[in-house]
Amino acid sequence: MAGYEWISFTTDYGTFDGFVAACHGSIARVAPQARVIDVTHHVPPADVIRGAAVLAQTAPYLPPSVHLAVVDPGVGTARRGVVLTTPNGVLVGPDNGLLIWAAEALGGVTTAHELSNKDWTLGDVSRTFHGRDVFAPAAARLAAGSAAADAGPPVDPTTLVRLPDPLVTVGDGWIEAEVLTVDRFGNVQLAAGGSVLTGLGPELTVNGNVRARRGATFADVGAGELLVFTDSADRASIAVNNGRAVVVLSVRPGDIIRITER
Amino acid sequence: MAGYEWISFTTDYGTFDGFVAACHGSIARVAPQARVIDVTHHVPPADVIRGAAVLAQTAPYLPPSVHLAVVDPGVGTARRGVVLTTPNGVLVGPDNGLLIWAAEALGGVTTAHELSNKDWTLGDVSRTFHGRDVFAPAAARLAAGSAAADAGPPVDPTTLVRLPDPLVTVGDGWIEAEVLTVDRFGNVQLAAGGSVLTGLGPELTVNGNVRARRGATFADVGAGELLVFTDSADRASIAVNNGRAVVVLSVRPGDIIRITER
Amino acid sequence: MAGYEWISFTTDYGTFDGFVAACHGSIARVAPQARVIDVTHHVPPADVIRGAAVLAQTAPYLPPSVHLAVVDPGVGTARRGVVLTTPNGVLVGPDNGLLIWAAEALGGVTTAHELSNKDWTLGDVSRTFHGRDVFAPAAARLAAGSAAADAGPPVDPTTLVRLPDPLVTVGDGWIEAEVLTVDRFGNVQLAAGGSVLTGLGPELTVNGNVRARRGATFADVGAGELLVFTDSADRASIAVNNGRAVVVLSVRPGDIIRITER
Repeated sequence: MAGYEWISFTTDYGTFDGFVAACHGSIARVAPQARVIDVTHHVPPADVIRGAAVLAQTAPYLPPSVHLAVVDPGVGTARRGVVLTTPNGVLVGPDNGLLIWAAEALGGVTTAHELSNKDWTLGDVSRTFHGRDVFAPAAARLAAGSAAADAGPPVDPTTLVRLPDPLVTVGDGWIEAEVLTVDRFGNVQLAAGGSVLTGLGPELTVNGNVRARRGATFADVGAGELLVFTDSADRASIAVNNGRAVVVLSVRPGDIIRITER
Repeated sequence: MAGYEWISFTTDYGTFDGFVAACHGSIARVAPQARVIDVTHHVPPADVIRGAAVLAQTAPYLPPSVHLAVVDPGVGTARRGVVLTTPNGVLVGPDNGLLIWAAEALGGVTTAHELSNKDWTLGDVSRTFHGRDVFAPAAARLAAGSAAADAGPPVDPTTLVRLPDPLVTVGDGWIEAEVLTVDRFGNVQLAAGGSVLTGLGPELTVNGNVRARRGATFADVGAGELLVFTDSADRASIAVNNGRAVVVLSVRPGDIIRITER
Repeated sequence: MAGYEWISFTTDYGTFDGFVAACHGSIARVAPQARVIDVTHHVPPADVIRGAAVLAQTAPYLPPSVHLAVVDPGVGTARRGVVLTTPNGVLVGPDNGLLIWAAEALGGVTTAHELSNKDWTLGDVSRTFHGRDVFAPAAARLAAGSAAADAGPPVDPTTLVRLPDPLVTVGDGWIEAEVLTVDRFGNVQLAAGGSVLTGLGPELTVNGNVRARRGATFADVGAGELLVFTDSADRASIAVNNGRAVVVLSVRPGDIIRITER
C-alpha cells in the first residue's frame, strides 16, 4: 500500500487547549512523514452537522488524503469508530454522521470498516479523548500504508449513521431551503445546490419582505444590498455586499429560508 | 528558476470555515514540496490596511518566500491580481494596496505582473473564492519555480493601487501620528517609525492628559503606567505595563495620537 | 549531536498579529528542516500558570521535541532565559516557572543552562520580542543539533523559578483541590491527580450543594448532570454531560473545589 502523504484534520477541540497538538503528536509518533492540513478546530462543541458540512465542502479541494475528523459527543460509549474508503481518499472518525457527506463528496463509500484493532491505538486509551488515543493514531497508520481492512471488521455501509437530510423544496418561482452554514463573513449558505437558482428571475424577495437580486459576486449589488448567488462550494447562498447577511436576515443553521420572484 | 521552499499566507478568512484549508489544499496539489507559514487569518473582514500592516511587519523575519495574501472585498470584479517581485521574495494577491507595504519592507518592487494566465488557475474558477482558485495556485506555481513573467503581462509599478499614507507629523517637542495597529496585548502602534521618539524627552503626555514615560521595555514603568517605546517592528508604540494601552487611551486604528513633552 | 526533528511551540501571542509567524520564520531561517507543532498560542496574556499547565499536559504526547514556550511578562528585564534538558526532550523559554511542570512531566530536569550565547540570537535583539529574536532561534539551534551546554553557563536546577504548588488536600470521604484549568468544553480540571478519586464513593456533592456522580465518561451521567472523573491528562476533573461544568459551578482557575461523599 502506498498510503497518503497528507492528513486533513477537523475537530471541535478549539485552539485554547493542547488537544489539537496532542493529536498532531500522535500522528507524528506513528507516521512522522505525514503532513497535516488543519481544516478547522472551531466546529462548535458537539455540532456534528457543522463539522460534516465544513469537511464535505473542503475535502474535494485537498490532495488525496486521510481525512481525520472528531466531533464526538458520544466518546467513550458504545458508538463505533469507522474507517470509510472512497475513490478519492479515506476518512476516519466516529460513526455519528460526521464523515458521510464528505465521503459522498469524494465519490461515495467504497468500503467501511469498524475501527477496533487494539494494535492501532497509542498508549492507554483514555475514555474521553479518542482523538489522541484512537482516531489520530489510526489516521497515521492509514497514511503510513496500512490497509483499511486491518482497522477492524467490515461494516455494511447502509448501517452507517446518517444525519437527517436538510429540507430543500423547489417550486415554480420560489425555493425553500434550510440554512446549512453561516460563514465568517456572515454569508448564509443554503442546503440547496446552486442549480436551484437557475429557475428564478433576477429580482427576488427573501423571507417575504427583504429585497434581493441574483448575481455572481458581491459587487453585483450595491453596498448593503442582498445578493443571491451560487457560492464557491456550489450551494445557493445569500450575501450582503459590504455587510453580513446573517444579521440582515436574522437566521441561523437549521432555519428555513424562502426565496421568491418579485 | 529555483523557486521557493516557503509560502507565507495572510487572509481575512478566519479559521471557523474551511477556506484556509482549501487554499492549503490548492498549494499542496500544485507544489506539494512547498511549506506554508500562516501569518494570520484573523485580519478583520475586508480590512486591507490591517492586512497590509501585519504582512509588512512580519515578512522581513521570514525566510525567502512567496508571500500569498488575500484580503479581497473586490473579488470577482475587474480589480487585478498581481505578482510583485522584490529583492527578498515574491508577493501574490489582489492589487488593492494589500501587498505594497510588504514589498517595500522587502526592498521595493522590482517587477510587477498582472496575474491573468489561465493555465495557472485550478478547477473552475469561482467568482467569490479566488484565494482557492487563483491566488493560492499561483503562489504554488511560483514556489515550484515558475517565473513571475509567466503570470501575465507586465504592469507599470507606478499604477499599482496604494493605500493612503498614514498621517505622521513631527514638531519641536511633540509628534502626531495615526494609530496603525493595536495588537493582542492592547499595545497601540503608531504609523511613525521609532526614530521620531529620539527628539522627545523622558516625561511625556499622550493626547493632552495622560502621563507617560519613554522607555525600552514594559517593566521600565510601574504596573498600570504608560510606556512610549520603539516596538519590535521599529515603530513608535504605546503600552501599559501589565495593562492594555488601547483601553486606557480609548483609540482605534486610524485615530490620531499626539505625544508631547511635559 | 542528532538534534530534534520537532519543535513544539506555546505562547500567549494569539493569532491576530504576525508574532507567531515571525517566530516560525526565525526557526525556518536557522533550522529549515525542523517541523513545528503549535501547542497553543491562546494562553491568556501573561498567564504563566495556564501556559505551564497546558504544556505539561501536552508535551508527553508529542514526539521527542525541543519545547519552545514564551509567556513572558518580564521580557526585556533581568529575568533569565533558560534551556532545560530532560530524559525526553529539551525546553527553552523564560525562567519564570513556565517550563518546569513540563520538564517534570518529561522525566525531570537533567541539566539547566542560562540562555545567554549572543551567537544564538537573530538580528538586532529587540527589547520586547524575545520570542522572535532569542527563544525561537535558540530552539532552532537545539533542533539543528547544538548542545544545550553551548547556550550559556550551567544553572543550578534548584535555583529555577517555580510556580506555587496548587493546593490539594485529601481527607476521609472528601477532597479539596484548586481548579487548575478550564477547557474548551467547560470541563473543570483540578490540580489533583486522578488517583485521589479512588477513595470516594459513587455519589458525590461538589462545593456543598451540587450533586454529582463518579464515572469514566460523559455519557455515564444523564444530560445536564455532573460527572466527576479522571480526565485524559490523568487529573481529577468535573464535567457536565451535554453542558459546561464551569458555568454550573461558577468557578475559575485558582478557586478551591471541595468534593464530598453523599
